[in-house]
Amino acid sequence: MSKKPEFDLASLVLPTGFRFAGATAKIKASGKPDISLIVTDKPVCGAGVFTQNKIVAAPVVLSRSRTPSSNIRAIITNSGNANACTGEGGDRDAIQMCKLVAEKIGCDESNVLVMSTGVIGRPLPMDKINHGIDLAYEALGSEPSNFIAAADAICTTDAYRKVAASSITIGSKPIRIVAMAKGAGMIAPNMATMLAVIVTDASLSPEDTQKLLVDTADQSFNCISVDGHTSTNDTLLLLSSGTDEPLAGASLEQFATELKRLAIGLAKQIVADGEGATHVLNMHVCGAFDNASAKRIAKMICESPLVKCAITGGDPNWGRIVSAAGYCGEPLSPELTTLDVCGTTIYENGTPLAFDAAALSKKMKSQMDVQLDLRVGTGPGEATYYASDLTTDYVKFNSEYTT
Amino acid sequence: MSKKPEFDLASLVLPTGFRFAGATAKIKASGKPDISLIVTDKPVCGAGVFTQNKIVAAPVVLSRSRTPSSNIRAIITNSGNANACTGEGGDRDAIQMCKLVAEKIGCDESNVLVMSTGVIGRPLPMDKINHGIDLAYEALGSEPSNFIAAADAICTTDAYRKVAASSITIGSKPIRIVAMAKGAGMIAPNMATMLAVIVTDASLSPEDTQKLLVDTADQSFNCISVDGHTSTNDTLLLLSSGTDEPLAGASLEQFATELKRLAIGLAKQIVADGEGATHVLNMHVCGAFDNASAKRIAKMICESPLVKCAITGGDPNWGRIVSAAGYCGEPLSPELTTLDVCGTTIYENGTPLAFDAAALSKKMKSQMDVQLDLRVGTGPGEATYYASDLTTDYVKFNSEYTT
Repeated sequence: MSKKPEFDLASLVLPTGFRFAGATAKIKASGKPDISLIVTDKPVCGAGVFTQNKIVAAPVVLSRSRTPSSNIRAIITNSGNANACTGEGGDRDAIQMCKLVAEKIGCDESNVLVMSTGVIGRPLPMDKINHGIDLAYEALGSEPSNFIAAADAICTTDAYRKVAASSITIGSKPIRIVAMAKGAGMIAPNMATMLAVIVTDASLSPEDTQKLLVDTADQSFNCISVDGHTSTNDTLLLLSSGTDEPLAGASLEQFATELKRLAIGLAKQIVADGEGATHVLNMHVCGAFDNASAKRIAKMICESPLVKCAITGGDPNWGRIVSAAGYCGEPLSPELTTLDVCGTTIYENGTPLAFDAAALSKKMKSQMDVQLDLRVGTGPGEATYYASDLTTDYVKFNSEYTT
Repeated sequence: MSKKPEFDLASLVLPTGFRFAGATAKIKASGKPDISLIVTDKPVCGAGVFTQNKIVAAPVVLSRSRTPSSNIRAIITNSGNANACTGEGGDRDAIQMCKLVAEKIGCDESNVLVMSTGVIGRPLPMDKINHGIDLAYEALGSEPSNFIAAADAICTTDAYRKVAASSITIGSKPIRIVAMAKGAGMIAPNMATMLAVIVTDASLSPEDTQKLLVDTADQSFNCISVDGHTSTNDTLLLLSSGTDEPLAGASLEQFATELKRLAIGLAKQIVADGEGATHVLNMHVCGAFDNASAKRIAKMICESPLVKCAITGGDPNWGRIVSAAGYCGEPLSPELTTLDVCGTTIYENGTPLAFDAAALSKKMKSQMDVQLDLRVGTGPGEATYYASDLTTDYVKFNSEYTT
């Protein structure tokens, strides 16, 4: 199965008000692009969601302090170096990156957001970054190729770029959303941070921009697991450039639904590109006490190495799945617990059912997405979590490297 | 490296008051022993610690309801079938196992404890179990070979038997402790439950027996991780047969220390026998808010697939370890965080240090036990957790099987 998602570049329509660029500053030894710049025509609303790790990189501290805002002018990102565990020098370098961009576009440096990803514990090569920002600034443009260049330059160990785009009409007005992300698997010594940027020309109030992003992250980027590791740099940003009356009511809901759909698709691209991954587990839990409880159960199942291995092997192993749900500490009614694997009920109300294991195994193996539906009681709580499976390639990638 | 611990069978001295047996009831297709019986000469104190999984096997429900007790006469264990997810029939079968033993030794069936481990979701073959109990009863004895036979019969996918023994003198009185366990890795469709039994001829009050076992489990069997999966059947039992004045004060403390030492050794045998394991990570955390917080940090690090893979590969990857500590939600001072790997400080007060990576990697690879010491602040909390590493063999074992 090809893991790389189809994306029709020719039909890509970018939101108005943004310019994009990617550049090569040789931060990466590979010589791949490593500076990504997004600049807005005017100040726009900006929101951010950041890693929950207590060890956080300098750019996270800085961008977190600058969102939400209604005056964002740019996002500058470097890959190849995470600027994490770099002390006070790292804080100065993060600010310096914003200053370099602000000087070029003519704004206050506090209106620039910054992200970094790559090796941790090493100072940023600021001379290279300075040069890279020069190059990126020169390359800015509003063509699909500029957007793609910006998306490529945030990648590290990703096997392919991760982008998503959507055009919808709200009322009679066309609205565009585009997004780029990089993957979450970790290869030493790189902490392959999850970075994602979504930009739209929808008109949103600063408060709604932040609230929408938090809600969206909660059901997309915060519902994925490659290996359960939360990096020091994880960052998700949303910029909205529209200047009309902010969306409200049903219009705002329509936008929120589309944003969520797009974010889930992008998040699943990250999972599919997890190191060594051969399947994406779609773990839907219902009947839980509440949505938060459903999410914790789904997460526990998705992080079980035994469940991941069962998905790898196409093994409809209800015992591993049900017992993982049972040990996570959330309310669960054993006598009401029911599990469907790829649409086939194999465990019902606490009792295993007879089923054609060979046929079901074949079905699991033949699909990139493996759907599991678990009912744990009669509560209203529901959630879906997405996880990569666990393969020998994952272990090889992560154990055969030596610092 | 040999993972099998040295054990001097010839010098094994069993506690007085117990008889042991193992028998083959052909529950297992392999024809290996699968019935284990421990009988006491008189009623003794019995304590139990059980799985926290909400999906629990019938024998867990039954034995949990019967401990603590001062009238235990026997423990009957079968391997090859977990009697889990087996409905009301499973409850009846668990009671029936106790009844069959009680009839033979002449006691009330409520004074018998029961454990099961193996395949889940299938009814116990009670005719075989009945026959096995006959055989085990006939084979009961108080020689080291009887103890070993009982220890062998609780194993499932274990590569070797897990036993530990200790003789100490408290006051002027000799006290013996012996223990058996089976491993915690899971191979489908077996849920390789952790089972352990400790028996001693120390004199303990029923309350102290239970309290000692809870405290001991908290620092041994509850501080190990093979794959983070808590089975439906995990059970730890302690029987104490002494009839003198119960130990108290310093004597009780001396016993508690020895019990803990023995339990940690046995727990580490389980980790070392984790599926595919090539190293045991000894994760010591100090400077935490309190002991519980230290334990949660140590657990989070031990369950990180990235950390496990680094241990497999002999990679002194401070980034993975420190960031795992950072994302577990416990109090942690980044600027005071310091990490030693096999005695070498490689990260100090929030900053990576220069070190001879090749030499340290060689040291990590050459040892079965890899010692990590992490300081996360200036608090009094401290804990040690033990984990197997993660290898391609683990993934092969758990993904190449199909139900």
